[in-house]
Amino acid sequence: MLLLRRCRSLTRFGPLNTQRNPVGPAVASCAVRLWSSGSSEEQRSYRHAHRPRWRHALAGLLAGTGAVLAYGLHHHQAEQSDSTSLQTIEKISTPPIFTQEEVNSHRSLEDGVWVTYKGGVYDITEFVAMHPGGEKILLAAGGALEPFWALYAVHNQEHVLEILSEYKVGELSAEDQKKQQTVKSSDPYSSDPVRHPALRINSLKPFNAEPPPEILSDSYITPSAIFFKRNHLPVPQVDPDSYQLRVEGLSEGVLTLSLKDLKTKFKKHTITATLQCAGNRRSEMNKVKQVKGLNWGIAAISNATWSGARLRDVLMDAGYYPDVSQWARHVQFEGLDKDVTGTTYGASIPLNKAISEDGDVLLAYEMNGEDLPADHGYPVRVIVPGTVGARNVKWLGKIIVSAEESHSHWQQNDYKGFSPGTDWDTVDFKSAPAIQELPIQSAITMPADGAVVDRSDEEVTVKGYAWSGGGREVVRVDVSVDGGKTWQVAQLRSSEKEQAPAPSPPPGQAWAWKLWEVTAPLPQEAQELEIVCKAVDNSYNMQPDTVSPIWNLRGVLSNAWHRVKVKVRED
Amino acid sequence: MLLLRRCRSLTRFGPLNTQRNPVGPAVASCAVRLWSSGSSEEQRSYRHAHRPRWRHALAGLLAGTGAVLAYGLHHHQAEQSDSTSLQTIEKISTPPIFTQEEVNSHRSLEDGVWVTYKGGVYDITEFVAMHPGGEKILLAAGGALEPFWALYAVHNQEHVLEILSEYKVGELSAEDQKKQQTVKSSDPYSSDPVRHPALRINSLKPFNAEPPPEILSDSYITPSAIFFKRNHLPVPQVDPDSYQLRVEGLSEGVLTLSLKDLKTKFKKHTITATLQCAGNRRSEMNKVKQVKGLNWGIAAISNATWSGARLRDVLMDAGYYPDVSQWARHVQFEGLDKDVTGTTYGASIPLNKAISEDGDVLLAYEMNGEDLPADHGYPVRVIVPGTVGARNVKWLGKIIVSAEESHSHWQQNDYKGFSPGTDWDTVDFKSAPAIQELPIQSAITMPADGAVVDRSDEEVTVKGYAWSGGGREVVRVDVSVDGGKTWQVAQLRSSEKEQAPAPSPPPGQAWAWKLWEVTAPLPQEAQELEIVCKAVDNSYNMQPDTVSPIWNLRGVLSNAWHRVKVKVRED
Repeated sequence: MLLLRRCRSLTRFGPLNTQRNPVGPAVASCAVRLWSSGSSEEQRSYRHAHRPRWRHALAGLLAGTGAVLAYGLHHHQAEQSDSTSLQTIEKISTPPIFTQEEVNSHRSLEDGVWVTYKGGVYDITEFVAMHPGGEKILLAAGGALEPFWALYAVHNQEHVLEILSEYKVGELSAEDQKKQQTVKSSDPYSSDPVRHPALRINSLKPFNAEPPPEILSDSYITPSAIFFKRNHLPVPQVDPDSYQLRVEGLSEGVLTLSLKDLKTKFKKHTITATLQCAGNRRSEMNKVKQVKGLNWGIAAISNATWSGARLRDVLMDAGYYPDVSQWARHVQFEGLDKDVTGTTYGASIPLNKAISEDGDVLLAYEMNGEDLPADHGYPVRVIVPGTVGARNVKWLGKIIVSAEESHSHWQQNDYKGFSPGTDWDTVDFKSAPAIQELPIQSAITMPADGAVVDRSDEEVTVKGYAWSGGGREVVRVDVSVDGGKTWQVAQLRSSEKEQAPAPSPPPGQAWAWKLWEVTAPLPQEAQELEIVCKAVDNSYNMQPDTVSPIWNLRGVLSNAWHRVKVKVRED
Repeated sequence: MLLLRRCRSLTRFGPLNTQRNPVGPAVASCAVRLWSSGSSEEQRSYRHAHRPRWRHALAGLLAGTGAVLAYGLHHHQAEQSDSTSLQTIEKISTPPIFTQEEVNSHRSLEDGVWVTYKGGVYDITEFVAMHPGGEKILLAAGGALEPFWALYAVHNQEHVLEILSEYKVGELSAEDQKKQQTVKSSDPYSSDPVRHPALRINSLKPFNAEPPPEILSDSYITPSAIFFKRNHLPVPQVDPDSYQLRVEGLSEGVLTLSLKDLKTKFKKHTITATLQCAGNRRSEMNKVKQVKGLNWGIAAISNATWSGARLRDVLMDAGYYPDVSQWARHVQFEGLDKDVTGTTYGASIPLNKAISEDGDVLLAYEMNGEDLPADHGYPVRVIVPGTVGARNVKWLGKIIVSAEESHSHWQQNDYKGFSPGTDWDTVDFKSAPAIQELPIQSAITMPADGAVVDRSDEEVTVKGYAWSGGGREVVRVDVSVDGGKTWQVAQLRSSEKEQAPAPSPPPGQAWAWKLWEVTAPLPQEAQELEIVCKAVDNSYNMQPDTVSPIWNLRGVLSNAWHRVKVKVRED
């Protein structure tokens, strides 16, 4: 057993140092001995006695359902590897053979959690607590991983296989392998819509993509086709004729509304509102230290007009009276998009935002004057202006007035901010509030980082966007071309270029971004410019100077000054 | 005239380089020639033809009515001076003599603006545009400065006299000097209340003072006696029996309420709310570059309970109907405190804050369970929770529902934020919104900057406060003892130490600060610690890292990370 323990401590860091080689050479020799000398009974008892002690090395690897980059850390670190392969191990050892029935009997933390993948049998009991998608992994217990991995494409990466390989305990019997191959897994993303080719894809399944920054700031109203897409699950296909929205939690019982009801029973209300993903600009946090989540650039933000019924009006119709605020605190939303277990996407917002006359929360059925596109929640989504994208639930199926926040993963264990000193060992998701209003934000869309300007131009034009959550209006954008030593005030724009400026909205109802532009003289003798922007909202909130002090393990709320470096080419 | 022009260009910078010497030597000789060779007619025509070309050198000198530090810049720069005095000039020349009648005839920019001070006659026409108190200076035109300077003690500084001396054109006739001396000026501050000796005074007339930081964080509820005081004018003495509050601007005409009416006709409502001066922590901006305004430390912020009638209820009683919001946008307040011209302190807030059920705006008549103290607005003041102190008008005399913001100096030309690149030459007060909600703030109250900790203690306990405007709750305070490299999360407290924690307020109604504390291990081998704090509110607004990029000419909104340096004493 001592040998075994020593081998274990090696395997613990094995996958971090291998590429294409599920288990490194030292590990391989241990594995050989393990399979040669130890019974599978011994292996199991050892494994159960030594639960997640690798947490420190492996924890924090990857996101919830949409975390594509999650395994990237491994992938990168894996590049300094050597080259013995598991195939070698398998050739020189005789792995135990298990039947499907034996695998089936390991479906809990008590009995051990076993799964199969392409003929291999894996005891993943220790990994359950580390699985970024949470205990959903148990749904695969006792069976094959393939249908689940088909749903979440994040798993289709080599280094995920490397991690899995660590847990291999044997092979599935040839007979049972044949049986498995006859069960086909269908692709739940096969009905996803066709997307615009200009989009920069961060994840294909589920689909997550952003427009190129230089296109983003071309239009005050972002065309729907290039409006950033942030899906957590496959796009559901909803029949508008049979669509039913349920409103629950009020004393008058459940109200059910058809799409036609929504369009005809309630006044149509239109607002212009910017949506931003909590993870916008996450890539800048990744440069400080790897976080988990999609590697968004600066364009997980867009601006559109939205039309629909006011949530307030619908709640009133459903039996909302002022006394509801005595017990209710939140309004929960459930999407019609669901995972293989039937769990739908969900989120909630505070009741006072939902019911306030000034809150402007919409059950939107139009985006930019047309039916909502499939990627944006057809036929109905919630628009919660001033609030993080994640609460603007798409393909809306249900509204619940409640004393509690949504219990969903995305409300409880995701989309929260933490101190830079908090890591995956110490994080307590209950200690932080769910992100609702977002802080002041701005970024430079032109010039791009690494661009070149000519000395003979004598000046450089800088463009970008700025927005703040909670209806706080952007009142100023400062731009520096010398890394923040001196500043110029940019010109703000709140309409398309050819249009007259939009009037300033009432306080607390500035839902839309401002585009900005400034032309600055090229500093003499500078060979490289560090262009910086920072915005100020009408509560005089400012952006923090640097990324490190706001770094957080989930890579959300990345709103430090945006910086791009530009070279000056001498004549 | 050529000589005269050359002399003028010298005088332009003279006062910046003299101390005790109103005019420097070069200037003195010019002055002699001026009075010897030129007629007073010539002098005047020259002066009128050459209006404020000194703006660059002199602009930005001092604040509105409460700007004590204003002239400090001069004072400091004046220290590198030499020693010829105006007395010398006066001895060797024969200044023109003017009668009071002649002085009286110069009361406008067209006719020239002349004033007298201690027997001297001054043509201050050129200075009017530079006067930090604005055109109020014209009220003294044609007469004596003494009664006005008695009101604003900021003028009682040597370097103010230096600036004045530059404008001397002659002497008042002996006869008229005698007449002036019979008119006594009374001290409008003679009725100000007695204050707590612990207060650190920033200005005596008007009274502005803050508590020592280490006392501030001793109590969750700040005792009224040490609650920071920020007066713009003398404290008015208001008779509670004859007190009348006027409510104007609504279609039902003027409503007049006695103190008894306020206390008996409307439900008494109590909130705990933190007030903060816009200039809190201004001293840190002064370290970057001199600004104008009182040199507040970190304690121009305090927390109290406030009881009174809701403004909302009073407005409803005065005839507020929802249709008022069709034309009205603001609620203006006028104080009973006034200057010599009868101009009262004034400010306004957005109508939706005033009328919202969640806004909690009070017409408060109690502070910490007792009648309002004289310094805090006895008998009635406005409490606008979540909003900068300046809008919480004290000694409330009038409420006006209006389409417009208050026209007061403090709403229009003060209490606004600007880019660090904006100076007194380029500032356009119309370009920035009046400060209402304040941004996220925190500061370290213990240990003090420069304190010493013993290595043998092994750890250091850090305490402070944190607050955010707009009812945004402070959700986290990060503390670093290594200048911001690593961070610990502080423990927050929302009640007195011995009490149970207060329940979390509804979203958008967190009006009170949080006190915080953290004990950090002393970093090994560090001889000096840079302790830093930064807070986060529930919109995840963060404080900016450094002061320079948020520096502004008025020194408001100073909310960068707070830093104190502490020495470690080895055993």
